Amino acid sequence: MIKQHVAGTVYGVILNDSVSLQRIGSLDEAPYKGAPKAPVLYLKPANTRVACGAQVSLPAGADSVEVAATVGLVIGTAAGRLTPANALQAVAGLVLAADLSLPHASYYRPAIREKCFDGSLPISSVKPRVDLAGLTLTTEIDGQVVDSRSLSELIRSPAQLLADVSEWMTLSQGDVLLVGVRYMAPQAKAGSTVRISADGLGSLNFTIAGAQA
Amino acid sequence: MIKQHVAGTVYGVILNDSVSLQRIGSLDEAPYKGAPKAPVLYLKPANTRVACGAQVSLPAGADSVEVAATVGLVIGTAAGRLTPANALQAVAGLVLAADLSLPHASYYRPAIREKCFDGSLPISSVKPRVDLAGLTLTTEIDGQVVDSRSLSELIRSPAQLLADVSEWMTLSQGDVLLVGVRYMAPQAKAGSTVRISADGLGSLNFTIAGAQA
Repeated sequence: MIKQHVAGTVYGVILNDSVSLQRIGSLDEAPYKGAPKAPVLYLKPANTRVACGAQVSLPAGADSVEVAATVGLVIGTAAGRLTPANALQAVAGLVLAADLSLPHASYYRPAIREKCFDGSLPISSVKPRVDLAGLTLTTEIDGQVVDSRSLSELIRSPAQLLADVSEWMTLSQGDVLLVGVRYMAPQAKAGSTVRISADGLGSLNFTIAGAQA
Repeated sequence: MIKQHVAGTVYGVILNDSVSLQRIGSLDEAPYKGAPKAPVLYLKPANTRVACGAQVSLPAGADSVEVAATVGLVIGTAAGRLTPANALQAVAGLVLAADLSLPHASYYRPAIREKCFDGSLPISSVKPRVDLAGLTLTTEIDGQVVDSRSLSELIRSPAQLLADVSEWMTLSQGDVLLVGVRYMAPQAKAGSTVRISADGLGSLNFTIAGAQA
């Protein structure tokens, strides 16, 4: 039985969709020398998670934040060495998530401050699984649609991603794997209200506040 | 009351000692353009933690592993916006830890597979605090001393590190902040027995096994 709210570690992945690869342009030059051959992962620890309705205060010095809409696969059972064929059996449900990042130009150092500040992962309660292949995620800021993405653009499918990651990392019940965020997601300013929604998964709402005094 | 075993997220930091900066050489060129101005953090999620006496199996394709001896500050109470003057009051105890990494040449992508495979953080039970400034960590592989480091080489002291990190990330009870690992730590091969020890903190022992079939 899966809990209604996520309790474990949240893992995310960048550069897992065709739009991001288009936007970032050539990865053929040094130091990358090509598109990623394995999932490019990052982690969102417990301090980043806030629920629907939260007010997120930006860190000192920040006045805007990138809002990347995504979906998380909630792990229902300890899961190591999954295969693409059986991987989805380990998924107990889905969450809508807004992966918040401070804008940062360099990917040469781990962007822990930029991606892991308190409240940088508004996340919905756990919903029953729906088919992700045809899902469209809509992001509204202050009532205006600023982004719409179809998960048909994913390069590694959810099942493939689970298999690739669990080959060397055992996922635990309550962990979440986000299926990918778009490079150059829309930005929200302090004072904005954000809503992310998808058919079958409801919506996730939160507001952005300025830096704490 | 702090638990005997670590339960939260473990955070680590690289390039926090004078020996690492010497070994890595100049950071003045692009893309870094200088030594780090803020702590360069990484995370070790729950799947990485194993206790004293563990046998660690390397991921497929790996036959050796870097063993970086370090000490972790165990957080005793929710801790945000600490100052260097009060930071150590949030520390309930210390752990000895061996931060295991697969050797990797590039720091241009987050080294999640290399640093977060199952069992890549052998960690001791929680010990009472001792003064870290004069502590020496000794690493033995198969009975031979292969490394000895004094924590007097730290650039950011434990108190400064806690203050810098908690400015934007609230640490929770049971979280651990590792005070830093040396660049180019000694390597252990599959089949090796490793022992890390320090006066007042006892020892941490584990073995390295080859990749699972």
